[in-house]
Amino acid sequence: MATIIDGKALAKKLNQQTSKRVAQLQSQFGITPGLVVIIVGNDPASERYVRNKNRTAKRLGINSTVNQLPAETSEETLLQLIANYNADPAIHGILVQDPLPEQINEKNITRAILPEKDVDGFHPVNVGKLYLNDTTNYPVSCTPKGIMTMFSEYHISLKGKNAVMIGRSAIVGKPMAALMLNAGASVSILHRYTRDITEYTQNADIIVSATGHLHTLTKDAVKAGAVVIDVGQNINEAGHLVGDTDYDDLFEKVAYITPVPGGVGPMTIATLMQQSVDLAEWSIRSDK
Amino acid sequence: MATIIDGKALAKKLNQQTSKRVAQLQSQFGITPGLVVIIVGNDPASERYVRNKNRTAKRLGINSTVNQLPAETSEETLLQLIANYNADPAIHGILVQDPLPEQINEKNITRAILPEKDVDGFHPVNVGKLYLNDTTNYPVSCTPKGIMTMFSEYHISLKGKNAVMIGRSAIVGKPMAALMLNAGASVSILHRYTRDITEYTQNADIIVSATGHLHTLTKDAVKAGAVVIDVGQNINEAGHLVGDTDYDDLFEKVAYITPVPGGVGPMTIATLMQQSVDLAEWSIRSDK
Repeated sequence: MATIIDGKALAKKLNQQTSKRVAQLQSQFGITPGLVVIIVGNDPASERYVRNKNRTAKRLGINSTVNQLPAETSEETLLQLIANYNADPAIHGILVQDPLPEQINEKNITRAILPEKDVDGFHPVNVGKLYLNDTTNYPVSCTPKGIMTMFSEYHISLKGKNAVMIGRSAIVGKPMAALMLNAGASVSILHRYTRDITEYTQNADIIVSATGHLHTLTKDAVKAGAVVIDVGQNINEAGHLVGDTDYDDLFEKVAYITPVPGGVGPMTIATLMQQSVDLAEWSIRSDK
Repeated sequence: MATIIDGKALAKKLNQQTSKRVAQLQSQFGITPGLVVIIVGNDPASERYVRNKNRTAKRLGINSTVNQLPAETSEETLLQLIANYNADPAIHGILVQDPLPEQINEKNITRAILPEKDVDGFHPVNVGKLYLNDTTNYPVSCTPKGIMTMFSEYHISLKGKNAVMIGRSAIVGKPMAALMLNAGASVSILHRYTRDITEYTQNADIIVSATGHLHTLTKDAVKAGAVVIDVGQNINEAGHLVGDTDYDDLFEKVAYITPVPGGVGPMTIATLMQQSVDLAEWSIRSDK
């Protein structure tokens, strides 16, 4: 029987800490962390995410605004808007919601955001620092950073462990692999071209799955006592939201597992909030 | 019986191409690639490396200069010198030779070099682009880039292969892992905290060793038909320069292997030359 890593409860705890830090920043420095979320077009899923982020941020005392632009917005207009926010000292974090309409080159947008306001941690210079295990302050992609908080809260050590990352996206797989490597794990990065995932997962102490495919991890594919982190959000045959892994089967065999929903998801938003406050704090220190 | 990957012959071939590209840049654009190598202090090994690089560069027609500074040079002085080279349009590549004296913070130096003149590929923004598999032009650490040239010249495909990188240095292990991942391999990064290297190497199609330890790879640790790339430079019990792997034993079992000396080493310098010309070429395109 596994211990369930309760992402919902952890997120609540993290949000309480974040809320306290916001109050402290205000009383001590007269600063309110400022977050702007830019959304281009009106994709319903994106609107829902943005609403969620905005609502949580406001609740924690972050000065959060949503800037929704029409779907036909040009790249130039968006770049100009980002330049304005870059120059605005009241804004500490800038987030541009995925996906962007096709006339906008996402790479140009990611690079236009000042690295010190890059609350998503997507800028190449922040990615480079992470991969180089730089020990100064810089933002890191929120989903993997939230998973590291889970490891830490559940006292799951990575040093010397065999870790497997299934998925190599810029948002989850690559930063997660870098974080686990920096924490001392031996890390294997797998993906769609991997010949046989089980060759790796059967020897793994820690498995993070972010494939977006049902049944990525079956009971046979893991060893007893493994730690399984499920980043997937899929709709199963019965129409329910589930992860990448066969949760019920794995539950009997592994030591730790994250549920879907209520696992990684809530920690991602809570980490975004945490990182918004990080950026505001770091901006003070760098002024001095 | 393995095929020996002849780094010396490949380096010669690459240098010939580089020399032709230099001539073409000159005749077509009136530009001579300019490389400056900065060395602080007089460590004999460093002096030898720098002499080597400088001699090869000159031979290929690159406008190479060595700037040797006293061991007591301050960080500020070095940063000012780099700023001057950054601003100098005749200089396309700036290389600061390792190691630096302790009064100089190497990280500050790496970041002071303009990313587009970072001929070593060590700047975080270049590392980030590599890890993100950015498809635009940017420099990449020369040893791993040279190994990728070896794979390509010997028609060794990485897609879907199990690749193992032993060592996680910023100069070799991490960029090598990123390059293999970008080429479609499943990549495991191992290091001093790895519990059991053979768990990984026995299933590996491709193994790159950069540990600096004798006998890192024994015959039992690899499968028949593997490709072994040896980045190590060690002095063995008999006082000879050898790699990390048990070359003679492995030779009977694997499909491809690099010798030491004459393998990865010559390719590193040849790749540095290649990349110096890359930077000069890219500087023309970015002017337009």
